[in-house]
Amino acid sequence: MGEFDLIARYFKRLTPQAALGVGDDCALVQPKPGTQLAISCDMLVQGRHFFANTDPRKLGHKALAVNLSDLAACGAKPLAFTLALALPEVDEPWLAAFSQGMFELADAHGCELIGGDTTAGPLNICITVFGEVSVVNGQSQALLRSGARPGDDLYVSGTVGDARLALDVLLGKLAVPDEVLKVARARLETPDPRVTLGLALRGVATSAIDVSDGLLGDLGHILEHSGVGATVQADVAIQSIATYASNTRTTGQFFINFSTNQWRALALAGGDDYELLFTAPPAQRAAVEAAALNNQTSVRRIGQIDAEPGLRVVDAQGQKLPTNYKSFDHFA
Amino acid sequence: MGEFDLIARYFKRLTPQAALGVGDDCALVQPKPGTQLAISCDMLVQGRHFFANTDPRKLGHKALAVNLSDLAACGAKPLAFTLALALPEVDEPWLAAFSQGMFELADAHGCELIGGDTTAGPLNICITVFGEVSVVNGQSQALLRSGARPGDDLYVSGTVGDARLALDVLLGKLAVPDEVLKVARARLETPDPRVTLGLALRGVATSAIDVSDGLLGDLGHILEHSGVGATVQADVAIQSIATYASNTRTTGQFFINFSTNQWRALALAGGDDYELLFTAPPAQRAAVEAAALNNQTSVRRIGQIDAEPGLRVVDAQGQKLPTNYKSFDHFA
Repeated sequence: MGEFDLIARYFKRLTPQAALGVGDDCALVQPKPGTQLAISCDMLVQGRHFFANTDPRKLGHKALAVNLSDLAACGAKPLAFTLALALPEVDEPWLAAFSQGMFELADAHGCELIGGDTTAGPLNICITVFGEVSVVNGQSQALLRSGARPGDDLYVSGTVGDARLALDVLLGKLAVPDEVLKVARARLETPDPRVTLGLALRGVATSAIDVSDGLLGDLGHILEHSGVGATVQADVAIQSIATYASNTRTTGQFFINFSTNQWRALALAGGDDYELLFTAPPAQRAAVEAAALNNQTSVRRIGQIDAEPGLRVVDAQGQKLPTNYKSFDHFA
Repeated sequence: MGEFDLIARYFKRLTPQAALGVGDDCALVQPKPGTQLAISCDMLVQGRHFFANTDPRKLGHKALAVNLSDLAACGAKPLAFTLALALPEVDEPWLAAFSQGMFELADAHGCELIGGDTTAGPLNICITVFGEVSVVNGQSQALLRSGARPGDDLYVSGTVGDARLALDVLLGKLAVPDEVLKVARARLETPDPRVTLGLALRGVATSAIDVSDGLLGDLGHILEHSGVGATVQADVAIQSIATYASNTRTTGQFFINFSTNQWRALALAGGDDYELLFTAPPAQRAAVEAAALNNQTSVRRIGQIDAEPGLRVVDAQGQKLPTNYKSFDHFA
């Protein structure tokens, strides 16, 4: 099977929204008047972002999900994406499953594949995603990293640390019961981008980022861009993934023998969570709760933004904890 | 050096055109009212698209050039691009040279780097490029593959076959004098995307494509999309690269002992040329000449579009030649 047949069979579909989709030198997109395009790009490399034996359907899902998560963090509505794919060989069952997983998620978000590239090479998946952001009275409604203000509450959606827990188990560094791995592994392999929550937070949140490298590391970007500091309640953040642990303590069924410090490290520096970390003034607490409720996503208030620069992590008694949980860095 | 320092040092620059550039979850671009965005994406893999020892400055140039060439083929004005980069290691001299080559070409075309991704992995460069296409009376001014009509002239810009000549010499398949290799190698390593010619052809050409996989193969896309056939004058196309050969015949200085068939194969199926192959009605001949002259790009009329489907290649005497020159296919 040649390159053009491969594209036609697995990647060419109707694109009712775009002016022109797959098949010419360029795709054509005409944003609605009074809107901006939000653009983001993520590259996934085998052995770095996923195991060689990852289920291709899940991989197709994840490759798009991590990109949609960037749109979510900007409060942008998904429109379209391009896919560049380097493949070691033409493996039709793999391509069928990969494209199925990718298109299922794309369809769920109304996001069209409008172009891309395929080539031979070590497996590499590069998606660039396009979303719509409205502009009201000349002001972009995008959620940025730069809008956090002292006194703002700090929130995280869903749970954090699960994906890293699964990764560490799969790497043989940790052991947990199969029932726990199953749940955690779904978070690692098929993350659910918080697109509708991001849209609902426009005009409510003052800043946002998606948690991809680890909560504290990603929070650092908000602090740097906003010129503020923050205090994080470590043990409120921990509760995010303590579903298993509390099950454990109550029923003894899923007992996991981790120290509090291990739980903290997973929650605060785990990475690959694709939850939204965001700030909003206390006056918006009801609006945040409503946004969460309307989008069936839990949201947890884990700290606050301070005028004093720097990051403080405290335990339930307000005692300071170390902040040097290591965030993910591809070259560190 | 970590991932964020690397981006800050080599890839973060001011973006006066974009609403928001490198550094947030998404970049923000607001196309001018009444314009479309043309979007294209190319992935370059080491060992497939370039040699491991390729000068990184030239590689930075080429990675962007092949994308700008897609904008040229659509008659789109370059605006911005994203860069995703998988690197085996952080090699600062390599990164400095790569980014220099890329930004030199970007600046020459007013094209801003607005975002991207960096990761560890086998060297892979994926650029997605954005250009502006005007819409007049609801009609996109983009040059598409689908507009060729019977009776149209068929043109190619510049010369074709040079890049393939250089590649075959570097692979040890052909031998030419050093002076010839030097010229041909520049075409392979630092192609000059025909952006201004593409812009000048809006409203003049009926269809266009850039020659990346080989002239006949790329022409095939125009024929398929337009539902037409074509006749190509092989020996007019050959003359494209015969600068060397004719020097040879006149002066004996650059003698290259290729058969006519070898020249034909290079010109018709060479690939990596990044010239524009386009069609225009005979009534536009003066306009095509003017577009070429104004953009210091030669343009050669190499055939015509026929109502009869299929591709015919003929010699100077009008005798039919084989058409099975093999175009580049990553999986063939």
